[in-house]
Amino acid sequence: MQNKELLEKLCRLIRYDILTSTSTAGSGHLTTSLSAVELMAVLFFAKTELGESFFRYDLKNPSNLANDKIIFSKGHASPLLYSLFHAAGAVSNEELLTLRKFNSKLEGHPTPRFPFVDVATGSLGQGLSIGLGMALGLKLRIKNSELKIKREPKVWVLLGDSEMAEGQVWEALGIAAFYKLNNLIGIIDVNRLGQRGETMLGWDLETYKKRIEAFGWEVVIVEDGHNIETVYSAFRKILSSKPYTLTPKVIIAKTVKGKGVSFLENKEGWHGKVLDEKQLKVALDELGEIDFKVRGNILLPNFQFPISPSTSSGSRAKSRDNFQSNPKSKIQNEKKLQFNNYKLGDLVSTRQAFGDALVKIGKTNPDVVVLDAEVSNSTFSQKFKEVFPQRFFEMFIAEQNMVSTALGLAKIGFKPFVSTFSAFLNRAFDQVRIAQYSEGNLKMVGSHAGVFVGPDGPSQEGLEDISLMRSILESIVLHPCDAVSTYKLTLLLQEVLGIVYLRTMRDPLPVIYDLNEELRIGGSKILRQSEADKLAIVAAGVTVHEALKAYDLLLKEKINVCVVDAYSIKPLDQKTIFSIGKKLKNIIVIEDHYPFGGLGDAVLSALSQKSEIRNPSFDFRSGRPEFIERANSETVNNMQNSKFPSINFEHLCVRKIPRSGQPGELLRYEEIDARAIVKKIKEML
Amino acid sequence: MQNKELLEKLCRLIRYDILTSTSTAGSGHLTTSLSAVELMAVLFFAKTELGESFFRYDLKNPSNLANDKIIFSKGHASPLLYSLFHAAGAVSNEELLTLRKFNSKLEGHPTPRFPFVDVATGSLGQGLSIGLGMALGLKLRIKNSELKIKREPKVWVLLGDSEMAEGQVWEALGIAAFYKLNNLIGIIDVNRLGQRGETMLGWDLETYKKRIEAFGWEVVIVEDGHNIETVYSAFRKILSSKPYTLTPKVIIAKTVKGKGVSFLENKEGWHGKVLDEKQLKVALDELGEIDFKVRGNILLPNFQFPISPSTSSGSRAKSRDNFQSNPKSKIQNEKKLQFNNYKLGDLVSTRQAFGDALVKIGKTNPDVVVLDAEVSNSTFSQKFKEVFPQRFFEMFIAEQNMVSTALGLAKIGFKPFVSTFSAFLNRAFDQVRIAQYSEGNLKMVGSHAGVFVGPDGPSQEGLEDISLMRSILESIVLHPCDAVSTYKLTLLLQEVLGIVYLRTMRDPLPVIYDLNEELRIGGSKILRQSEADKLAIVAAGVTVHEALKAYDLLLKEKINVCVVDAYSIKPLDQKTIFSIGKKLKNIIVIEDHYPFGGLGDAVLSALSQKSEIRNPSFDFRSGRPEFIERANSETVNNMQNSKFPSINFEHLCVRKIPRSGQPGELLRYEEIDARAIVKKIKEML
Repeated sequence: MQNKELLEKLCRLIRYDILTSTSTAGSGHLTTSLSAVELMAVLFFAKTELGESFFRYDLKNPSNLANDKIIFSKGHASPLLYSLFHAAGAVSNEELLTLRKFNSKLEGHPTPRFPFVDVATGSLGQGLSIGLGMALGLKLRIKNSELKIKREPKVWVLLGDSEMAEGQVWEALGIAAFYKLNNLIGIIDVNRLGQRGETMLGWDLETYKKRIEAFGWEVVIVEDGHNIETVYSAFRKILSSKPYTLTPKVIIAKTVKGKGVSFLENKEGWHGKVLDEKQLKVALDELGEIDFKVRGNILLPNFQFPISPSTSSGSRAKSRDNFQSNPKSKIQNEKKLQFNNYKLGDLVSTRQAFGDALVKIGKTNPDVVVLDAEVSNSTFSQKFKEVFPQRFFEMFIAEQNMVSTALGLAKIGFKPFVSTFSAFLNRAFDQVRIAQYSEGNLKMVGSHAGVFVGPDGPSQEGLEDISLMRSILESIVLHPCDAVSTYKLTLLLQEVLGIVYLRTMRDPLPVIYDLNEELRIGGSKILRQSEADKLAIVAAGVTVHEALKAYDLLLKEKINVCVVDAYSIKPLDQKTIFSIGKKLKNIIVIEDHYPFGGLGDAVLSALSQKSEIRNPSFDFRSGRPEFIERANSETVNNMQNSKFPSINFEHLCVRKIPRSGQPGELLRYEEIDARAIVKKIKEML
Repeated sequence: MQNKELLEKLCRLIRYDILTSTSTAGSGHLTTSLSAVELMAVLFFAKTELGESFFRYDLKNPSNLANDKIIFSKGHASPLLYSLFHAAGAVSNEELLTLRKFNSKLEGHPTPRFPFVDVATGSLGQGLSIGLGMALGLKLRIKNSELKIKREPKVWVLLGDSEMAEGQVWEALGIAAFYKLNNLIGIIDVNRLGQRGETMLGWDLETYKKRIEAFGWEVVIVEDGHNIETVYSAFRKILSSKPYTLTPKVIIAKTVKGKGVSFLENKEGWHGKVLDEKQLKVALDELGEIDFKVRGNILLPNFQFPISPSTSSGSRAKSRDNFQSNPKSKIQNEKKLQFNNYKLGDLVSTRQAFGDALVKIGKTNPDVVVLDAEVSNSTFSQKFKEVFPQRFFEMFIAEQNMVSTALGLAKIGFKPFVSTFSAFLNRAFDQVRIAQYSEGNLKMVGSHAGVFVGPDGPSQEGLEDISLMRSILESIVLHPCDAVSTYKLTLLLQEVLGIVYLRTMRDPLPVIYDLNEELRIGGSKILRQSEADKLAIVAAGVTVHEALKAYDLLLKEKINVCVVDAYSIKPLDQKTIFSIGKKLKNIIVIEDHYPFGGLGDAVLSALSQKSEIRNPSFDFRSGRPEFIERANSETVNNMQNSKFPSINFEHLCVRKIPRSGQPGELLRYEEIDARAIVKKIKEML
């Protein structure tokens, strides 16, 4: 090691920064940050005799794809993260002391508002999966010769020992080894203490090693994670030029929580606590003399890579404060569609149409990648796999890892489509939640929606999925009812940025849309309408078809109703629905979903003019068209202060715990079939 | 082994049953069921020379706590499960052929409607955690001398190899070993093939063994999972009487998917497919001669255990078809409360009050147990731990496992309270989802709600949690605003059965309720009201306090408003809210939560008279009082066919991605503080 003395000074400076910034903030995770100082300082700043370093990063170009990536899976060690970049000269003294303040980029847990952070962390156990996605993406870029490098970029993930209890970490460990991601390197900071006491394994590094080696990783143990030289040796070993191994690697270091401050070291009860003025003075005295001018030098990635919008779009957004995506809706060029196998009346499942659309997308959009969790022959993502095997990633039965992996891939500029059963996407809700704080670009497609699934029974059925996906602040939620609309909406999604959920169904349904139909996010389609309408049916998915059957039955009795396909559940076509509601004064919503949080709630919001709009001070990435109309905000403005109309409202949905049975039987049992619709409408009128 | 020939006949019968039942149903997971036949037949029916068996179960008394438990974590192998019980003589030929039919107890994936199933499975990776909970519970019952046994009951969990990719399995493996649950025994059916192809490890049993041994389990390998004798030896070994080891155990067996039918064996593409008439004939011919009269004998648990309501209530419900809980609301005896440290105006956090209530509950209710995920000093479940350490279970940072473990404990008759940050409970949504199909008794308490959390930032904040928990069909969702109401509602919950979520907050807030206040599930409290009211504010949690401040500010300007604390978000006090809405015609809802699926949607439902009622054909367990008033269904009936009133509705909530900052700053930024309320109200009026 070339610069040990410098490193010692840097470690002292970093500790100084951690202590002062957290005490100034009055909160923060001090002891957790202190235990990983040497590990991170060596990673960032140590130089070999040849002047090489471990971590390579272009501070002036955070979007540079060839940068190494650093993820703090133990996100609560953010004070350490910020102090590292202060020691690198990229963060000023003043800014460092804005930790946790309102409007500061230095938030309590890292978010991409800080220029050198790609993804938000803070919900433990997710970082390794995100790193897996980045590592996978980088290898794909290299394979496609889209990355000009001399040295393969590495993805470094700092984990805590407490979070090793999270199952998702073991999903990532298994799958990273399976995909031979030797560009993924974990660093586990084993400081023995969780938030409220000792972890399950304490300082038993051997057991961590045994477990992780059994998962196929190469492990290097560091007995003293605060000895700069032994830490350095470990990093050397990890990156040594011995025969090339195709395994991911991890450094497991024994550390001390609170290291550097005697009254904190290895003590319980200090998690998340900071020092008051008196304690701080004692601690700083212990630290000794600080060289405030010392800075570490992070080497460049060692090649030139032109930053082009197409590859950097995934990593950074221009404006950090109000990230949102506002995709417009029109299909660019209908001629491109050239699929001619869906004719009106054909029976085609929407899941199959999704698969077909993926293939189409794959042909025209080289950045689209697809991930699936062992059910690609059910979701039909397998169609994409057959044509583009290089861009399809089997993620096995591990949905949490899949979603976080997709987030990582998005940060390398890919456009991931993630698919599994709608019910199983629920497994990864926390990962979707965190993705929203990471400017995540995630297209999720959940199949097997509702009781329409039939004999498999409720464990396999998405009945809360619309609610969950609506909950994400800026999500888009779509539920097309036939193959054509599914195909076209899926195609639309490739240019949409943000978190999107599209719901598909298992069984074949009649094609009701013409190939030339114009569909848009935030749109709806009035399928039946007349001057004599007494009531409006608003439906999505299978219930659209039931509504159309009901329409025919009612027409025989000379009762006219309007039928609306609300394929865009969020944003909902508020304008249309509000005006129809106001005019007809009778609305019935029908959905194959539990009563709460789904289309029913969405329609009620529309009728009440509750704004579902995104924050209007929107900033979009360059080069991306606006997809979502601002019609919604216009609607709100126009309707401001007008009263909630007096409307007769009914909601047919799944109100009883479902069971096995034929799809038709279940629609009947749950009273969301044509017969139930007719009955309810007659009651209403 | 005493009865090898019988076992061979039973295996043939079971295969016959699997084939015929699935073909009759027209769907089902045939090949998956076939691979585990010998494993399960030996478990259920093999006898040693001494006439002992491995699995002990009282078919006439499924609620018998001393029964062994069997969980099919690979729930899609349900045809095998039902065939086993047919072979045991507990299911008739006719019933077996009702597989997957509407109204059959033999659903596509097991549910407690089948008398010998305790928990629904079908979402992979959850079974081992549920078994962990049962094993934990059984040991506690034994320790408390509440279980009279000669032989400790075992919990057997059948897993598939595909589902070993699920992280939750590894959460369970680690935590079961930590808790030395040597009464928990896993059986992994390694048939190499997942749904769409080979698993990551194929038939590499050695690697499974290495991994699981590293997690602290004892492993026995079975090289041929279809050789009855070697399978038998494995079970003998697992349960042998060598020196008592305190580790959980697992049998890992190499098997063949589709075993028993030559054209299915080890073939890809057959997952979830059944045989048509022709194929079935060929398969049955291959099976050879079936002894249709043969039955296996499952031995009793070998002791007498009186079935008392208190211990069996967790396992079985009287009526399987419409399980729900309808808890009434009144506190049984206010004198019992005897807590005198919350006085009006005191600043106490609701999370602390939750902790205090837990201690109170613990004193009077010996069946209450508490689980927490490494944050007990933040959620205050630690107060319970300090007084009742035997009944507190640290579940480390593994929320999925925690929730499923709680479900398992509930099946042993305990009343689990599960706590962590509201944001992290999201991690376990799928587990909550499945619990609803298991008649799950689960009290979940999520702390650190909303932006009110402050400097930690959004990764730590529950902003979608109300929406998620409302989504569960029959859930109860509460959000008390002060210490007294939190304390009292928590106390109420101990006698409530079903899935309940209570939301607490981080910072101290003023006590506004008197100790004698009557609170009920489905209730609300009108805090301010006058004849001159122009508008109603409906709030919950911190926004109640902001609303009260707003009230005072408005009063100064001679504007009167009504303030309602909607502490019961689900079921909502529809009656009160509807009548106030109708009368005042102006309603504003304020919540510290994202716009969708929370209190706003709940109030809109109430105003639209959408029924949030549970299925009225309710059947309650004996001995349990009714807690939830039927007021709601009365309300619906009374309001039938009355129009949606014309109401001016506004909704203040979190509409911008939050960030770090002080709680007050964030309430202001998100426009849900008193000032924003006043401003909005003036606009409305």
